[in-house]
Amino acid sequence: MIDYSKYYSKLATGIKASEVRELLAIISQRKEVISFAGGIPDPALLPREELAEIARDVILRYGDVALQYSETKGIREVRETLCDYLHKKKNIHCEPEGIVITTGSQSALDLIARVFIDPGDIVITENPTYLAAIGAFKNAGARIIGIPLDDKGMRTDLLEKKLMEMPKEQIERVKYIYTNPIAQNPAGVSMSFDRKKHLMEIASEYNLLIVEDDPYSYLVFEEGVDKTNLKSMDKENRVIYLGTASKILSPGLRIGWVVSSTDIARRIELVKQYVDLHSPSLSQIILSEAIKQGIIDKVLAKALPMYKSKRDTMLKAMKENFPDYVWYSKPIGGLFVFAYIHREGFDSGALLKKAIDLYKVAYVPGGSFHVDGHGKNSMRLNYSYPSHEQIHIGVQRLAKLILESTN
Amino acid sequence: MIDYSKYYSKLATGIKASEVRELLAIISQRKEVISFAGGIPDPALLPREELAEIARDVILRYGDVALQYSETKGIREVRETLCDYLHKKKNIHCEPEGIVITTGSQSALDLIARVFIDPGDIVITENPTYLAAIGAFKNAGARIIGIPLDDKGMRTDLLEKKLMEMPKEQIERVKYIYTNPIAQNPAGVSMSFDRKKHLMEIASEYNLLIVEDDPYSYLVFEEGVDKTNLKSMDKENRVIYLGTASKILSPGLRIGWVVSSTDIARRIELVKQYVDLHSPSLSQIILSEAIKQGIIDKVLAKALPMYKSKRDTMLKAMKENFPDYVWYSKPIGGLFVFAYIHREGFDSGALLKKAIDLYKVAYVPGGSFHVDGHGKNSMRLNYSYPSHEQIHIGVQRLAKLILESTN
Repeated sequence: MIDYSKYYSKLATGIKASEVRELLAIISQRKEVISFAGGIPDPALLPREELAEIARDVILRYGDVALQYSETKGIREVRETLCDYLHKKKNIHCEPEGIVITTGSQSALDLIARVFIDPGDIVITENPTYLAAIGAFKNAGARIIGIPLDDKGMRTDLLEKKLMEMPKEQIERVKYIYTNPIAQNPAGVSMSFDRKKHLMEIASEYNLLIVEDDPYSYLVFEEGVDKTNLKSMDKENRVIYLGTASKILSPGLRIGWVVSSTDIARRIELVKQYVDLHSPSLSQIILSEAIKQGIIDKVLAKALPMYKSKRDTMLKAMKENFPDYVWYSKPIGGLFVFAYIHREGFDSGALLKKAIDLYKVAYVPGGSFHVDGHGKNSMRLNYSYPSHEQIHIGVQRLAKLILESTN
Repeated sequence: MIDYSKYYSKLATGIKASEVRELLAIISQRKEVISFAGGIPDPALLPREELAEIARDVILRYGDVALQYSETKGIREVRETLCDYLHKKKNIHCEPEGIVITTGSQSALDLIARVFIDPGDIVITENPTYLAAIGAFKNAGARIIGIPLDDKGMRTDLLEKKLMEMPKEQIERVKYIYTNPIAQNPAGVSMSFDRKKHLMEIASEYNLLIVEDDPYSYLVFEEGVDKTNLKSMDKENRVIYLGTASKILSPGLRIGWVVSSTDIARRIELVKQYVDLHSPSLSQIILSEAIKQGIIDKVLAKALPMYKSKRDTMLKAMKENFPDYVWYSKPIGGLFVFAYIHREGFDSGALLKKAIDLYKVAYVPGGSFHVDGHGKNSMRLNYSYPSHEQIHIGVQRLAKLILESTN
């Protein structure tokens, strides 16, 4: 047997297989476990019949494009369709030369990390924030500074304070502010318009770039939530906007998009050519055809009431079953409730194995979403995938776990 | 206007947009130019009807998998199908836990670079070698040492000599030997069985890993060529094998695969989770269904005589039109002829613009395939994509360019 460890890079050596990942990887095979761990759309929302017809049709009609190599940036017609769609839906001005189609938005996070980050550079994020964004940025060697959020999103006053205190050399190393302003993952909150304005002013004053990750603005089911995208307010071209087909059409296509200045798009393209050459042509054309046929709008028309009602079921079950020292978010959209168990020593990561084996319920320990080692007493709970009944029973099991682990 | 240059990483700053890339990017819009530049399958070989039916069928039958998120390593059933196929076709022993499905084999090259390479580490390759492999390895900071090849493939005697002369500290930094042993890109030659044995012995003696990139072994159209894969000879689990659907089914699916030890597969998986989470589920299932239905075998049955005959057309045209100071390979398979123009000062890169604008013919300058700055007088010529007539006329144009540039 060869000992491969001497061959591995620092990156591969440093990435430890986490116990949490191992535990969550196998729960799909254990039907008795109710999982709140994923970030997966309700299977009933996947437009099977429509996409089956579209897939057949685009291969027959445009097989020479759909089955063939394509441009690294993405197929031009698909980029044009996406730009139109973003303009219509999000008031985002975008040109085909400023958009790059990526292999899911995970690949966009990775490409952006590689285009901007040298080891030791700084990224500012909300805290908690999306764990796989942390993963991508850290893989490139980023140091991450977290800014707390409340029910109006990132505390931009604290961001400003932080920047005011930072030595100039340190500010020079801030490559971008990463934010998930609408229906934030994991916290489920949205930035108010005033905060968005404040954030844009801060970026301008300190000459900073912003990465706006926006998988969830389509999935805001509460009235009165400000859904303005930072990119639509972006007069100085500081915002790099990320979108994805995963939550509004199908994750299995693996299609995301980055909208930025043409200069940045060019750099992303140059790095991407050696990363995966281009994203799947077939998936790109399916997406573009689905947009043109209004399939996404149909999916959303079903998704919004469904997710709202599942959220209601989860919040109701929590209210009925959770002890009063559990604080949890009241999400206005997206797929998740985030909960903090305010009891000394409660460690959701350490309890996960027991939760799965004994209580038959799973979640993502909240520590992974925190950039500063905090949040061991928190957990992220998904309500989009489980059924109403599973949500109901799962929350009861969780309540039992919490009660029996805090006594 | 923001000056973005201060934000870019060293990687993004260092990747210069090459003039060659710019020139080649636009030739698809210039119908009068005959291009030998791509590495693209003949469009007549794309099995449109079959894949259209398969795509529709798998979405209707397995939509919950094909349209949904899947495992980072790849869908288990697809990995099993692939392992069976590789065992049957290539005598490669592979387990589902030792295979990772990637977003084309470009992504495999990138992942392997990230799993093994720290800046300053060494990769040994054939010289010339595949330019996008050089790109991926260099992006990770690799130093590349090239070993010449002849019509029996890599000169393993020179490899051995090189290793014997290397100081021990330097050998410690050799992370792997990258080889394209069968129908090599760009040279079109295959390693003899004796050389393969010798290479495996050297790897064992010096305790080195081998990355075997194998897009073309399915496309060997000459009799008597040894098609044994290094991976099938690999008793010590030193070989990391890369395959792809791009040349035998469809590049637009973006599906490749890496077969290695489970330990290495695990590291690739851990890095991949933050790179693109997983490769497209839909493409994976289409591939697996196409294998089961024998579509790949049907494609190959058409491809082999077609490519052989196109190669014949190209070689014949070269014989008739090229001056005798042009040496060119006689490929036994694959998609390319490689040519050296043995005249002082001939620079195919510097001539490319003129070739396209004036002579209406394009190629990839051979310097990009050389790891040591040599090969400015060489070019790679693709015969799989252009028609027989285009090959005929294109070679005449090229001959004119060569004659008029060397007088």
